[in-house]
Amino acid sequence: MTGGLTMWAARALSRALRAYCTSAPCPRPSQLPRVSIRDALVSQNPRGENMKVQGWVRSVRSQKEVLFLHINDGSSLEHLQIVADPSLDSCLWQTFPFKYKERYPLQYIRQYPHLRCRTNALASILRVRSEATDAIHSFFKANGYLHIHTPVITSNDCEGAGELFQVEPSSKVKKQGKNFFGVPAFLTVSAQLHLEVMSGAFTQVFTFGPTFRAENSQSRRHLAEFYMVEAEMSFVESLQDIMQVMETLFKSTTEAVLSNCPEDVELLHKFIAPGQKDKLEQMLKNKFLIISYTEAVEILKKASQNFTFTPKWGVDLQTEHEKYLVEYCGNIPVFVINYPFDLKPFYMRDNEDEPQHTVAAVDLLVPGVGELFGGSLREERFHLLQQRLARLGLTDTYQWYLDLRRFGSVPHGGFGMGFERYLQCILGVHNIKDVIPFPRFSHSCLL
Amino acid sequence: MTGGLTMWAARALSRALRAYCTSAPCPRPSQLPRVSIRDALVSQNPRGENMKVQGWVRSVRSQKEVLFLHINDGSSLEHLQIVADPSLDSCLWQTFPFKYKERYPLQYIRQYPHLRCRTNALASILRVRSEATDAIHSFFKANGYLHIHTPVITSNDCEGAGELFQVEPSSKVKKQGKNFFGVPAFLTVSAQLHLEVMSGAFTQVFTFGPTFRAENSQSRRHLAEFYMVEAEMSFVESLQDIMQVMETLFKSTTEAVLSNCPEDVELLHKFIAPGQKDKLEQMLKNKFLIISYTEAVEILKKASQNFTFTPKWGVDLQTEHEKYLVEYCGNIPVFVINYPFDLKPFYMRDNEDEPQHTVAAVDLLVPGVGELFGGSLREERFHLLQQRLARLGLTDTYQWYLDLRRFGSVPHGGFGMGFERYLQCILGVHNIKDVIPFPRFSHSCLL
Repeated sequence: MTGGLTMWAARALSRALRAYCTSAPCPRPSQLPRVSIRDALVSQNPRGENMKVQGWVRSVRSQKEVLFLHINDGSSLEHLQIVADPSLDSCLWQTFPFKYKERYPLQYIRQYPHLRCRTNALASILRVRSEATDAIHSFFKANGYLHIHTPVITSNDCEGAGELFQVEPSSKVKKQGKNFFGVPAFLTVSAQLHLEVMSGAFTQVFTFGPTFRAENSQSRRHLAEFYMVEAEMSFVESLQDIMQVMETLFKSTTEAVLSNCPEDVELLHKFIAPGQKDKLEQMLKNKFLIISYTEAVEILKKASQNFTFTPKWGVDLQTEHEKYLVEYCGNIPVFVINYPFDLKPFYMRDNEDEPQHTVAAVDLLVPGVGELFGGSLREERFHLLQQRLARLGLTDTYQWYLDLRRFGSVPHGGFGMGFERYLQCILGVHNIKDVIPFPRFSHSCLL
Repeated sequence: MTGGLTMWAARALSRALRAYCTSAPCPRPSQLPRVSIRDALVSQNPRGENMKVQGWVRSVRSQKEVLFLHINDGSSLEHLQIVADPSLDSCLWQTFPFKYKERYPLQYIRQYPHLRCRTNALASILRVRSEATDAIHSFFKANGYLHIHTPVITSNDCEGAGELFQVEPSSKVKKQGKNFFGVPAFLTVSAQLHLEVMSGAFTQVFTFGPTFRAENSQSRRHLAEFYMVEAEMSFVESLQDIMQVMETLFKSTTEAVLSNCPEDVELLHKFIAPGQKDKLEQMLKNKFLIISYTEAVEILKKASQNFTFTPKWGVDLQTEHEKYLVEYCGNIPVFVINYPFDLKPFYMRDNEDEPQHTVAAVDLLVPGVGELFGGSLREERFHLLQQRLARLGLTDTYQWYLDLRRFGSVPHGGFGMGFERYLQCILGVHNIKDVIPFPRFSHSCLL
């Protein structure tokens, strides 16, 4: 039996279960309120009262005198079984790409971006994603953070990074040689500088929105369009305070997901990522570790493993290094702090230390994913910031940013978390393309 | 006294009020937890215990033996008054553009996108914006809607509208003649079609994200980047049900804002939009009205007013018409339903009516702003949709959309609300550029 058949059955069922409603404008709504299948499944209904549910038929099992229908409305993984009259089983056959009870690899499902949310696996992932989104908003709200919609289009080409998307009106409306905004405009790669503007008036701010990289990558950890949770906190003087917020955000969001979507998480842990359940429990019950970048390089140098990139102080950590460090730490998330001054962007706070010169930066590395969070204290001292911008030839571009320090500068810092990587980390989903509703990457922008 | 001075005072004060903390990596956090000024102001503190607040000095009043400082940390409109030692008053003078106690027009403030959040008016607007954002998420969560992150970049040029932004890697990484995504890619103008994909698996879905138009407009009601709240509901067969959700969303969000940010709303109603308070009360206490497009045209034809555009059945309503209709309805929001078939996009549900041929579309018009919501029932009938796409030559492009009807089609519909227009409507802010943190419009993309 194909899923197509079951999909058509929904229409028939829906017609059968409800009084017919005219399609003319503004008819009276039907009288019985709809109950979600999630609620219907837990309701006791001791008096055996009539109940109205609406959903899609996921399977039909025909017996001599009755039909057994499994109905799903997206509110839960579990279906509601309906015993129906066999006359309902007159559905059309269609070529629906997913057969009921067959388990498809996520890679196969990915070929059908408009239908894949109708599979159990994707539906569970999307329910978890929605729950995590809500938990993140609630976390910040409960802790007094102001939500800020930072811009997607920006004239700021952030740190001169190369991997930017540029934005112009489409050819139909474009005027040759003139920029729509008067200046070149790009899609944001980070909301940090905009959040810093806001953190000059509000003590704690956050944003949760789309972020972009024009990277020509097909990696399982990269997308051209992905979501970032970013926060900025004024009056923060130590990385410790920032790491505390990161760890609490990770743990409280995950606890919320586990307690509100247990069946969905279980399905994924069982069929997509066996062993993930234990790994996640380890992450939740242990305090995250902290090592310095300098210590990390020492650990890597002493490793018996041969790396493709030889570890060396002053050079970026590679994916293979991150992986080793997390395993070395017993698969507990680990904060790596105080990176070389020369590796990091101008806005990070100078530790003014010796013998090695570092900035107050932090990355959180997690099992299976690698870098999940990045953060830093920001350079709030006007003269130090001014010197660094001058050395980089950026003084004119960042006058506005210097103004933030010219007037009422206070110690502050913040972080960003890749939301899709977070979902990969807790669910054990291997490919980032499977935890976002509509993945965009090089050579692919379906729908 | 300039604001610049007061801003510098914050640094001095903050130094004075706290034990000195080293800037070295990971010092011990200071012992007393910070209290927000919002909480400090309502705390009774009967035992007169020490309390730690951190914020920016908004004004300094010097007396013979003491200094009076007004401190603000963004958590509320109200300041905390601190009585301090006069030795603190050794601040630097700076050219901060806003003087304390002076009231500037929003247009003047807009020139300083990086500093304007430090004014009372903008800070109040941004607190209301954050509260409204939260209330909207809560509304949908409480009503069982799944949150979906619909894509910003899309290959779908929605209804062939001309005002699209196109996206390509910036010149630094661009390869001549090749699209990064393999196809032309645009910034989304609506999440509707993507939400319809999801509403084939989940009964109720919503999104709240950035939306784009490359319109060459400097109007007080248009931005190139703005936020839309969009919802899609399966098993909905009447516009009445959709209007009910719109009205409840508007009223419950507004009630939440009024009850959580009363001082902020009062400031704006008092100084920015006198008379707005009464108007808003009228909107909240009355049931929204419903008229058909046909009735609307009749009302306009009978109007004594001379319109620039003569009202005529089959032609779009103009801003002047919307304004008249809302006033005619006593400044109560009014739903206009059942628009001419030929005016509306292919996905709206055919009413199959006579003598005039209409679709089940609805716009909500509100005082001061005009169109705030737009929605419709969608054409769920495969053969009708197929015919319309064929007539428009869009069959190949929308095969995936036809698939949504080929498999398990059910009656459904939804709506979108312009979030900035919503804020304009409840606060009475005239220009849309003043209700978004970083406005983007033609010739302007600051920061």
